[in-house]
Amino acid sequence: MLLTSFIISIVALFFAGWLVFWIKKNDMGTAKMQEIYEAIKKGANAFLKRQYQTIAIITVVLALVLYGVYALNGKSLAGLQVSLAFILGAICSSVSGLIGMWISVRSNIRTASAAQTSFSKALTIALRAGAVSGITIVALSLIGITGLYYIYGWMGYTAIEIPHLLVGFGFGASLVALFAQLGGGIYTKAADVGADLVGKVEAGIPEDDARNPAVIADLVGDNVGDCAGRGADLFESTAAENIGAMILGVALYPYFGINGIIFPLVIRGFGLLAAVVGVLFAKAKETDEPLKALNKGYFVTSLLATIAFYFVTMEMLGSILMFYAGLVGIVASIAFVFITQYYTEHKYRPVQDIAEASKTGHATNIIAGLSIGFECTAATVVTISAALLASFKLGAMTGFEHGGLYGTAVATMGMLSTAAYILAMDTFGPITDNAGGIAEMSGASKEVRERTDKLDSAGNTTKALTKGYAMGSAALAAFLLFSAFLTEAGMTIVDLAKVEVFVAALIGAMLIFFFSGLTMRAVGKAAGKIVEEVRRQFKADAGIMAGTSKPDYATCVDITTKAALKEMIIPGLIAVIIPIVVGVTMKAEALAGFIMIGTIAGVLLATLMNNAGGAWDNAKKYIEMGNLGGKGGDAHKAAVTGDTVGDPFKDTVGPSLHVLVKLLGTLSLALVALFI
Amino acid sequence: MLLTSFIISIVALFFAGWLVFWIKKNDMGTAKMQEIYEAIKKGANAFLKRQYQTIAIITVVLALVLYGVYALNGKSLAGLQVSLAFILGAICSSVSGLIGMWISVRSNIRTASAAQTSFSKALTIALRAGAVSGITIVALSLIGITGLYYIYGWMGYTAIEIPHLLVGFGFGASLVALFAQLGGGIYTKAADVGADLVGKVEAGIPEDDARNPAVIADLVGDNVGDCAGRGADLFESTAAENIGAMILGVALYPYFGINGIIFPLVIRGFGLLAAVVGVLFAKAKETDEPLKALNKGYFVTSLLATIAFYFVTMEMLGSILMFYAGLVGIVASIAFVFITQYYTEHKYRPVQDIAEASKTGHATNIIAGLSIGFECTAATVVTISAALLASFKLGAMTGFEHGGLYGTAVATMGMLSTAAYILAMDTFGPITDNAGGIAEMSGASKEVRERTDKLDSAGNTTKALTKGYAMGSAALAAFLLFSAFLTEAGMTIVDLAKVEVFVAALIGAMLIFFFSGLTMRAVGKAAGKIVEEVRRQFKADAGIMAGTSKPDYATCVDITTKAALKEMIIPGLIAVIIPIVVGVTMKAEALAGFIMIGTIAGVLLATLMNNAGGAWDNAKKYIEMGNLGGKGGDAHKAAVTGDTVGDPFKDTVGPSLHVLVKLLGTLSLALVALFI
Repeated sequence: MLLTSFIISIVALFFAGWLVFWIKKNDMGTAKMQEIYEAIKKGANAFLKRQYQTIAIITVVLALVLYGVYALNGKSLAGLQVSLAFILGAICSSVSGLIGMWISVRSNIRTASAAQTSFSKALTIALRAGAVSGITIVALSLIGITGLYYIYGWMGYTAIEIPHLLVGFGFGASLVALFAQLGGGIYTKAADVGADLVGKVEAGIPEDDARNPAVIADLVGDNVGDCAGRGADLFESTAAENIGAMILGVALYPYFGINGIIFPLVIRGFGLLAAVVGVLFAKAKETDEPLKALNKGYFVTSLLATIAFYFVTMEMLGSILMFYAGLVGIVASIAFVFITQYYTEHKYRPVQDIAEASKTGHATNIIAGLSIGFECTAATVVTISAALLASFKLGAMTGFEHGGLYGTAVATMGMLSTAAYILAMDTFGPITDNAGGIAEMSGASKEVRERTDKLDSAGNTTKALTKGYAMGSAALAAFLLFSAFLTEAGMTIVDLAKVEVFVAALIGAMLIFFFSGLTMRAVGKAAGKIVEEVRRQFKADAGIMAGTSKPDYATCVDITTKAALKEMIIPGLIAVIIPIVVGVTMKAEALAGFIMIGTIAGVLLATLMNNAGGAWDNAKKYIEMGNLGGKGGDAHKAAVTGDTVGDPFKDTVGPSLHVLVKLLGTLSLALVALFI
Repeated sequence: MLLTSFIISIVALFFAGWLVFWIKKNDMGTAKMQEIYEAIKKGANAFLKRQYQTIAIITVVLALVLYGVYALNGKSLAGLQVSLAFILGAICSSVSGLIGMWISVRSNIRTASAAQTSFSKALTIALRAGAVSGITIVALSLIGITGLYYIYGWMGYTAIEIPHLLVGFGFGASLVALFAQLGGGIYTKAADVGADLVGKVEAGIPEDDARNPAVIADLVGDNVGDCAGRGADLFESTAAENIGAMILGVALYPYFGINGIIFPLVIRGFGLLAAVVGVLFAKAKETDEPLKALNKGYFVTSLLATIAFYFVTMEMLGSILMFYAGLVGIVASIAFVFITQYYTEHKYRPVQDIAEASKTGHATNIIAGLSIGFECTAATVVTISAALLASFKLGAMTGFEHGGLYGTAVATMGMLSTAAYILAMDTFGPITDNAGGIAEMSGASKEVRERTDKLDSAGNTTKALTKGYAMGSAALAAFLLFSAFLTEAGMTIVDLAKVEVFVAALIGAMLIFFFSGLTMRAVGKAAGKIVEEVRRQFKADAGIMAGTSKPDYATCVDITTKAALKEMIIPGLIAVIIPIVVGVTMKAEALAGFIMIGTIAGVLLATLMNNAGGAWDNAKKYIEMGNLGGKGGDAHKAAVTGDTVGDPFKDTVGPSLHVLVKLLGTLSLALVALFI
């Protein structure tokens, strides 16, 4: 079975290669488009190169720390293996980010070019480019873990021992994902906020206008933040969840044997296969709504994944209860999509409320948006709670020891079985966003821009939905990871009534708040630098606004790069250091409290950030559709303020929190020896 | 010793009576001032009357529920006693709020009048009026609990049994405090935001201008929200903390005997005495900085309270370790004051950052303020953690069972020993705020307004500082309360590794977020109604802006009253119902997890709300002092947006969370029979 999964991954990689080949055959548009493409490519490459250099240093230092921890505990060999797995995880995660960016940069322009003649073709290019990311990343994660599994097996380790050696892989992947998401997230929103503040608000020029010196930086941001950052994030999700589930599988060895351990990998393989088929089904006619085509593919993927889930579960675990647990996860993922829709689409009450509140000014817009953000946590928490309780009960009904926990693990697998397709839809967003920007900047006709706008709008929806999904799966994966941590640390109880556990829990929640504050401030500071530069350029050369001279895009890109890289260091290091300090000084039980409550706070804040940000964005769009005074009116100005505040919420802090929540789990697993 | 404490309370009440007599002797100013005073008095009375009617209904229903719970468990007599204590607590809490409002309404005008001739006199009136609130409330809390203690003793209950019967008193006090703070908080900020949005931003008239139809509602708001609401809040704090500590005292009966049980009451009595002396010391010369005078009083109070703490602790508990634990609490309260100063005063980095960010617009101002809010939780959490760990260790060093927990209780008592003086400083804020409003509206000379401005500015600082203190003490008191809950429920472990405890913890944190969202939305909705009414009046009668016709203040007051009362119901009921549902369905251990994590989330969010709100306020004031373009510039406009968003943060949601956190504790204690 495991070999099947491995082979599926290889086949999926070939399929992704074929998609790349197919995409690259498409036309690259006008000379003007290619000029913009070159500028974006250069900026994105430069950022990623410098970012990865920084990350590499941090990775190497931590690898040495990891090795040292094991060596001091007299386990040099295991230390070497865990450290190497850590580095491998970091490399795979980096490669995932790189692939995400590489393909998106190359597809943006082809999508823009295709939009000149055919809507259907543009959509297909954008979705297939997203699929390259989604499929490659999930396949890489599978190949990495399955490969390590085979290698360790060949080295003589038993199936029961191997999962414990894999924890380094998960930690490495998380670490890179954190910095990739932080750096990319700060970059993209600093550029976006900076460009909007001077361009849209002060100078009154449209979004993506070629006269704005920060416009290329803004487009680069979509690639390095939304594509590269999210790629690393989802690589880490799938890897961490697999490893956590395998560790729980070890605890159920008496019942399921080796099947319980490799089940997560096998199920993921079949999910991947389902996504491949789903992508081929997602085609739009010239007159279709874009979301209809995307949803068709999602439906096919979900259906196939569910069927595969049934057969694999019955074959490997022989328990219909476990299949039901997986079904709980699949249903929960659909629930998250609906909740996100309700809170972020303009036809429902929340976005309408924010739009209404914009009539009375900037402040009421902000108050309304924040209150929606706080409020929406209720629906999300109820869904997570119901999913956890139901899958736990189903698992416990098997009568196996730890069966309940394994039930929650299976639910998480169910939820993540469509991950590759979801990731494809997610990456679809920034690609269409960029394509729209390229069309606008290259002075494409109104008809072309209408096509790209339609795609962009669908992309915004898919981005919001996948964020809801990513948060839900992060919550379940985090629960899985600290269950695995308890197993690894040999604990059965985490007693909150102990003062040190309570204090650690308090600090865990605080870390989330502190990290969010630092990250938000980082965006504000970096954006401030861009605002100053754009203002400087406008002042120094009046020809820019007149359209007679070309702005200096490269300086803006360079400033954003430097600022984002500088600002990502402190929040990132704090996220790694505080849990280690708490674990070392207060030990495993307190650390478990720290992680659990950190996870709770992270889930709540990320939900708030994602949904409030999405709702603000769509309230602005709703007004721009001509409601409440339309574009340029007072309500619109207030709505732009909300949208700008929402930018770091939904694209920097929220996604970084997803990663942080899982990093807490993988970090504690990898360094467990330090904390006992 | 207990009798001493009882006598001190009675003496303190007489002292408060003398203060009232002294205040009432002062002049009530011009006819214009008296006209405004009458309008404020009428509006405040009308609101409180209607608010208390609503609260009374809820109280009676809950009293019946309480009785029913005990009766169904075969303890009718105890049920009767707990329910009566519940009603008594509710009545005392209501009376506290009433007194706070009664004295502030009568002192505002006298402070404004005194400011016509003497700064020093105005300050003394305002502080003494605050002291009437502070002293009466703390005395009432002591008399209520001590009185019940004597009555139950006379009925034949032993010292060990009595604390368990008092839990109803704490729950009643919490319940009223929640609704008083919610209703008052929504009222005051809806009126403030509504008045500012149309008056300052749209019509461009100054704050408290008589032409603004919502100006009386705004002034009424200070009295019903800041005075009445905070009065009920602090009554509840002292009552709940006393009862929680007494329950822990029962657990230490083998070591301290009855002294451990009545110690909290005795120490509170001496703290009250210290505050009485401190108030008499707080006098300002004509040229003094107002804060200097207030600080002198605080210093005297703290010093006397510490000395008394030493002697009472040594006499009653005979343990220097416990005195040290109390000292930890006193030091922590000073640390909270410094942290709040750092994050909310304009001379430090955070407020400067927000002011700087205002240069680039509304959105960056909001981002900067929120990031400061998130960030400041770190310092607060570190202080709370250190205080808890240190006092626990000191208590545990006594070697007594539960000694550690009692140590944290003693630290809480140390922190709250200056509560009466702190409350006086707190109430000083809205009184000077109102005095300034009355001076402005009655067309007082520039010199007079300079005096009231100076007082108002000091009042803003004391309000911010006491909020930091209130949050810190709420955190410690909450820890005390759920420790007491564990004792009452006969639990020793709260195991987060159990899925139902984890889920309950998740829901506990969610309740805090959900409640915050509902409360914030309530302010936004109520403010929207006021904005519409003010706009309607301006439109219907051009004479209002010209100053030739008088606006219809009463309608604005009426609209605010109705809106605030309507909007307080849902958040208030949710805060009561969700914990009961969780407790009944998931039982005591899960409920303990719910309360603990709810407390953590509440402490973090309240800290964020209080400090971000204070920082936004002072960033605006900093710009108004002539920095960064000064009043009317673009940075100022952005800063006004931040200030307006901060209003519900710091004066509605933050303070309501203080109450909610303690309500969770008292509710679970009072209804413990339901959850086992």
